[in-house]
This record gives sequence, C-alpha cells and structure tokens, in this order.
Amino acid sequence: MDDRVREHAQTLVEWSARIEPGDDVILQVGEGAHELAVAVAAELGEREANLVSTYTSGEVHRAYMRAHEGEFEPDPAHELALYENADSVLSLRAGWNASATADVPGERSQALSRARTGIREAHMDTDWVSTVHPTRSMAQAAGMSYEAYRDFVYDAILRDWEALAEEMAQLKEILDDGDTVRLQKAGGPVETDLTMSIAGRTAVNSAASVAYDSHNLPSGEVFTAPYDTEGEVYFDVPMTLQGQRVRDVTLSFEGGEVVDWSAEQGEDALEDILTTDEGARRLGELGIGMNRGIDRFTDSILFDEKMGDTVHLAVGRAYDSCLPEGEAGNDSAVHVDLITDVSEEASLTVDGEVIQRNGRFAWEE
Amino acid sequence: MDDRVREHAQTLVEWSARIEPGDDVILQVGEGAHELAVAVAAELGEREANLVSTYTSGEVHRAYMRAHEGEFEPDPAHELALYENADSVLSLRAGWNASATADVPGERSQALSRARTGIREAHMDTDWVSTVHPTRSMAQAAGMSYEAYRDFVYDAILRDWEALAEEMAQLKEILDDGDTVRLQKAGGPVETDLTMSIAGRTAVNSAASVAYDSHNLPSGEVFTAPYDTEGEVYFDVPMTLQGQRVRDVTLSFEGGEVVDWSAEQGEDALEDILTTDEGARRLGELGIGMNRGIDRFTDSILFDEKMGDTVHLAVGRAYDSCLPEGEAGNDSAVHVDLITDVSEEASLTVDGEVIQRNGRFAWEE
Repeated sequence: MDDRVREHAQTLVEWSARIEPGDDVILQVGEGAHELAVAVAAELGEREANLVSTYTSGEVHRAYMRAHEGEFEPDPAHELALYENADSVLSLRAGWNASATADVPGERSQALSRARTGIREAHMDTDWVSTVHPTRSMAQAAGMSYEAYRDFVYDAILRDWEALAEEMAQLKEILDDGDTVRLQKAGGPVETDLTMSIAGRTAVNSAASVAYDSHNLPSGEVFTAPYDTEGEVYFDVPMTLQGQRVRDVTLSFEGGEVVDWSAEQGEDALEDILTTDEGARRLGELGIGMNRGIDRFTDSILFDEKMGDTVHLAVGRAYDSCLPEGEAGNDSAVHVDLITDVSEEASLTVDGEVIQRNGRFAWEE
Repeated sequence: MDDRVREHAQTLVEWSARIEPGDDVILQVGEGAHELAVAVAAELGEREANLVSTYTSGEVHRAYMRAHEGEFEPDPAHELALYENADSVLSLRAGWNASATADVPGERSQALSRARTGIREAHMDTDWVSTVHPTRSMAQAAGMSYEAYRDFVYDAILRDWEALAEEMAQLKEILDDGDTVRLQKAGGPVETDLTMSIAGRTAVNSAASVAYDSHNLPSGEVFTAPYDTEGEVYFDVPMTLQGQRVRDVTLSFEGGEVVDWSAEQGEDALEDILTTDEGARRLGELGIGMNRGIDRFTDSILFDEKMGDTVHLAVGRAYDSCLPEGEAGNDSAVHVDLITDVSEEASLTVDGEVIQRNGRFAWEE
C-alpha cells in the first residue's frame, strides 16, 4: 500500500474526525475506495472505535432508482436507526464513473431526497467528514493521468493542518473584526472592484476538522457570509455547472443584488442559476482559498475553491455558522461557487487595510 | 450483465427472501459482489423495498482486527439498531482471497464473536438469506477456471425451486414419520452399515427459502437430527477442515458415540474436532443432498453437502428446527459435516423400506 494512503487514513481519523475509543463509526465506502477503507479500518481498530461499513455505488443506486416507480417511504427505520446511533460518519468518495446516475430521472432523485430528511439530519448531527480516494474516473474528469492525479490529491490532503489552521485563524480574526471587504483585480471583460459588508458576521476557519466545524478533507479556506454587495467582478476560473462548461463569468451588483451578468460560454446555465429564486442573485459566501498544496484547477469544487491565491463567491444560500444566533442569512435553493484567481494584479482589503496582494498575505510580507 | 446474474438476483429476492413492499432490507455486499448487488438493487427497487448496503471485506476486517488490541464493546448501538430494525438481510458472499484473514489471531476473532451476540441474534431474527457471487478466488479454491466455476454456481442456484421443494417434501414426510434410518454402502476401508434413530424428530425441507426456514441459496437437502447411532461409516468425499486436507474418514459408533475413527489424511484435524467436547462425538445431523444441479465436489460445504446422490452426517450440534419443542438435541461447540457418495452400491432405508438405492429415490423407480 502507498504510504500516502495510510497517512490519508490517519489524517482523516485523527485530525479530521477526532475519533475516540468506543465511538460508533459509519464508514461509507465508495465503490473505488477499498484500499483507503482498509487503511481507515486499521486506524479505527487501533483507536478501538466500533465500525459499520456501508457501500456507496453509483451503479447500485442507479439500478435501485430506475426500478423504483412508486413513492419513497419516509426515513426507513433501519437506516434512520443506524445514523441516529452513530457518533461519526466517514465518507470515502471514489466513483468509477461520474456519470453513473446520469439516466436517473431528476424528479425521482428529488423525491428520494425529500423522503430522507430525517436520515440526512441525523447524519449531519454526527461528527461527519467527507473525503476522496483518487480513482481513474476522477483523474479523467480532471484531465490528468492517474499517477499525476494521485500526486495532486495527496498534495492537497497531506498538509500540516495544524500550522495551516493557525495561519487561517489570523485571517478569521481579521474578517470577524472587519466591516467591509473590497476585492480588486485587473484584467478581463470588466475590471473587478467589489465591496461587501461583513459586519456582524462570523468567519469559519475551515481546517478540515470537526473541531473547526469543517467537514471536508481536503479543506483550507476561510469563509464568511457577505451582504450589501456593490460593484463588478470577473471570474476567470472555468467550471462545469449543471452539466455545462461555464467560463469567463462577470457579475454586476447594485444594492446587494446581481443586476447584470455575462459568460463567454455557458451563459444559459448561469442564467438558470441566477433566476432560481430571489436569493440566487445575492451572495451567500465569500471564501478565501489557502491550501497551497492545490496547484491547478481540476473542475472539482472540493479542490478548486480551496486553492491558495484564489477567492470564491457563492450566489445563493449562506451557511448558518457565519450568522449571529437568530439572524437569517441569505436564503435560496442554490449555492453556486464562482472562483477568481488573485495571484496577480489583485488585492483584498478589509476596512482599508490590504490583507492580500498578488497572492501574498499581509503577514507574509 | 450476464442474464444469469439477473436471474440469481430475482431468485434471491423473490423465492428465497420473499421481499415485500416497504421491507427494510440490509444488503451485505461482499468485496467481489458488485455486479450481483446492482442486479439485486434493481429487484429491491421494483418491489419498493428500502435498501441499506453494507460492505463485507476480508481485508477491511483483517486490518481492523489486527489493529484492535483491547476489549470489544458488546453490541455497538449503531449496528445493533440497524439489525434490530431490519426485516431482511441478504448476504452476497464474494471474497477476493479465501485466506484474507488467515493472520488474524483466533482468540481475537472469538472475542469479537462473543461481543456481537445481540447483533447476531437480531440478524438471525430477520428473514436472512446468504448466497454467493462467483469470484476468481472461489474458482481457484474449487480448482476450476472462472468460466467453468460460474457455470457450476449458476447450475446450482438457478433451479426450479418450487418443483424441488415438492420433491423434498416427500422425503421430509418419510423422515418425519420414520423411527430408524439405515445407511449401507459397499467399498472403502470399512463397509458402511449405520443405523440411527430419528423417532420424534422433525426433518427440514431446505428449499432455499425463508418460507421453508431455509437460509442458503443454493440449498437442496432434507436434514434431521439423529441419535442412538450404531455401526460404521466411510466418508469418501475429501474436504478441508481446520485448514487441513482430510480424506477417507471412517467412524465407528457404539451407544450413539464415536468410539473409533481414522483418516487416510488429516487425522489430526479429525481428532481435534472429535475431542472438542462430549457432543462432538455424537451426530447432530443427517442430511440428504437433493440438488442435482451440483455435479462435482468443490471443497465448499455450501455446495458439496447439497449435491444430489450424497448423504452427509455432522458430528456436533443439532439444529433446533429438528427438535420437538422443549427437547434439547445434541449440544457441542462444533458442527462438522462429513460427506459420502451414495450414487453406487449404496442404500438408505427407513424402517425397513428402501427410500434410495444407488442414487435413485423410491418415487423415481
């Protein structure tokens, strides 16, 4: 076994999920995740946690869904009981075919999702962590060879998370104390100059650990929930949204709302998203990528938005963890991230103080 | 997908497990059983059953067990709740390496087994069925090519179970009404001539369906719990017991107990078994194989003991289902089946009536 698989398992169990002796753990094994599952099982055994392994497969799910023509029973008792009695859920995502469920009717998937509200809530009430085990299918989606993709994934995952968490804590403090963020960047169809209010909002130090309320490995971003956005912004990182390639997006904000938009490619998909509901035209998230183990875009939001020297803005729903108790943030059925590279001719300013310029943070100067 | 995989899935869900709409089903997916899991998921979806898939892997289990050095917690809550709330458990056995757990300390496996008594009982309280999906590892263990092994497995599984159940019902009736069974067979180190009492005992029509209290697919045997065994018997079917090759076993019974034994090969393993406890020297089972889809011995008890024209006798524990309410049958920590071929120069007699001679049943003459 590649030593990196063992280190990945150790990071997941120790740093991310903080597994303790006697914890009741559900290990969700993706169809291509066998090797990582073996390594994680050893870590769980060593910690004397209790293990139930489940099997996650696009093909099994597709077969079930296409054959199931009736109503879905709400929250089946056996599955609900499993999740309600679990302390942690570790998801090892590793598909063999990203399009495995492409021919499942969308309304049927939505009906299943609605019927599983209780199971989903029980899952989210655990110390859950989601990670990926590299497969050839995922390498293909990233346009990379399998070996190169494995290097890419482990470079992103096997960080000094403790050191990164400390660095991110500095940025969190600045954002927590700040009132206004300004993002500027030269070049593109529009000059980026965007201001957002973050007064009263709490930033999340997303350090890939349940101890930081962060549930993805890799992670490595600090994010908050902005409002009252004004100005223009250009997103130069291409991505796939709703199955369509979307590139060179621009958004113009007035009074907190998108009033104009464009895309060099995929404008239909962008329009679909922005017209979903009212909240879809306001920002739900400002995120600052700080994982410098990620050195290229792979059209996977799990990695792209964490990349060092990038900033992402999501239209749609805000995360509760950024909001003061009792305050409702922006609400929407969507949450779609758009990314801009800030490594050159770009700056991020909080209350007039430059905190990042051309990819270098103030504390790195 | 091979049509036989679909037919296997349909037989499992419909004939064996009798799945109904709304049933809460656990599908235990062996590491090599993906294809069958897809086919079973389609059958479960069609019947609108509720599906949780678990992952069964020798390598995952080994990693967990070798790392776990402390006590095992009794019946972890999440797993117990899963099984207590399930209606059916379908196990798809399909290992990649029959020796995957060979280096797990035996006492540790026994400790885990003791700690899981409640989970095991909850599992056995469901409508559970265990079946196999052919893998290359299993073909190798059988000494067969993969293609030939697949043919072998599907010939055993894809029977007309309804017709076989009716035929087996005739034998069950004879055994239920009978008092004494006599097994005779020419040739071997000793001439086989064995008599057993079956008075008051109930035979099980093991027709591979929960409707017949039969939990393996394939099945195809009628068995009961004999006692007061007298005489000598020769077992000509070789098998692996406790990791050792055992062949040409003879047993001599007096007053219901084995008083002498021999084996051409593996006599140590045989002696280990027979000296486990007192019950290990008495018979727990007389079984008559009636699955004529099985045409060769593969050193797998699941198949070998079901083969048409064979008889097996188990030393050790008797099954409760053969005993009158309140009566204790033979008790032992072991239950080890030994098989003899009765296709030639052999007969099985109940109360003086020949019911099988040279592999032909009375009703076939």
